[in-house]
Amino acid sequence: MHAQFLQQAIQLAADNARTGQGGPFGALIVKDQQVLAASGNQVTRTLDPTAHAEVNAIRQACLQLNDFQLHDCILYTSCEPCPMCLGAIYWARLAKVYYACSRFDAAAVNFDDSFIYDEILVAPAERRIAMHHIKLPDALQPFQLWSENETKVAY
Amino acid sequence: MHAQFLQQAIQLAADNARTGQGGPFGALIVKDQQVLAASGNQVTRTLDPTAHAEVNAIRQACLQLNDFQLHDCILYTSCEPCPMCLGAIYWARLAKVYYACSRFDAAAVNFDDSFIYDEILVAPAERRIAMHHIKLPDALQPFQLWSENETKVAY
Repeated sequence: MHAQFLQQAIQLAADNARTGQGGPFGALIVKDQQVLAASGNQVTRTLDPTAHAEVNAIRQACLQLNDFQLHDCILYTSCEPCPMCLGAIYWARLAKVYYACSRFDAAAVNFDDSFIYDEILVAPAERRIAMHHIKLPDALQPFQLWSENETKVAY
Repeated sequence: MHAQFLQQAIQLAADNARTGQGGPFGALIVKDQQVLAASGNQVTRTLDPTAHAEVNAIRQACLQLNDFQLHDCILYTSCEPCPMCLGAIYWARLAKVYYACSRFDAAAVNFDDSFIYDEILVAPAERRIAMHHIKLPDALQPFQLWSENETKVAY
């Protein structure tokens, strides 16, 4: 069963690569053994660097379920999720993930997945894209307002 | 100058938290000292768990520049980017990032940023959201097709 859905994700990735519609990646979201959402990578076609197959499938499945979380859903993806997609998986609260090839396979065809995993371990200010923490007196004010807001939709 | 743009990001975050329009986070993309894009978090309002302030600002700025990369652009964000946004920053090829509070500040008001950073260090199959590698004979076929496609748009 898992292999069958993974095979569909690989097929999406292969179609994308063959037609040049986007990067060689595909993903499905499945709930109760039904496919809720399916997508290939659409970065170049939609001018959206976040339009990885997994992110697209998560966005579609949320609209499908009318919810910003995907409890009890499984993600099948042709390749190990990059850190961006891994984060999206946690925020969407998916139940589980199955993937068909690894970040090292992706690196072998010049995708940065493995490199980005390595960068996470570097201190922010020393990363290839430097990330500087500037401390300002009211930096925490948004969090205080959030804690005090009793009508907020928590997530 | 950096503090001024960061202050705008904090203001977006504060407005979001006060009005309940979304989580207490805000971000700007700046190029040549001009604000190209600005957004608060919109997860609950748009039913999109990936609609963090940074991701929204990156998507907007790309459409603005008609490009899927943001070379020479700076991201200012009210809080240290979570792993999803960190990944998005690398894929968008931003030049630099400035942030006003840390993942630990976010954790103190129950956001999972710090937890997701910790999960990345756990072996995939043992993560809280388990990620299983199933090896299939044609898993690498999409990458082969991608390498052979001479008309593809690389990214």
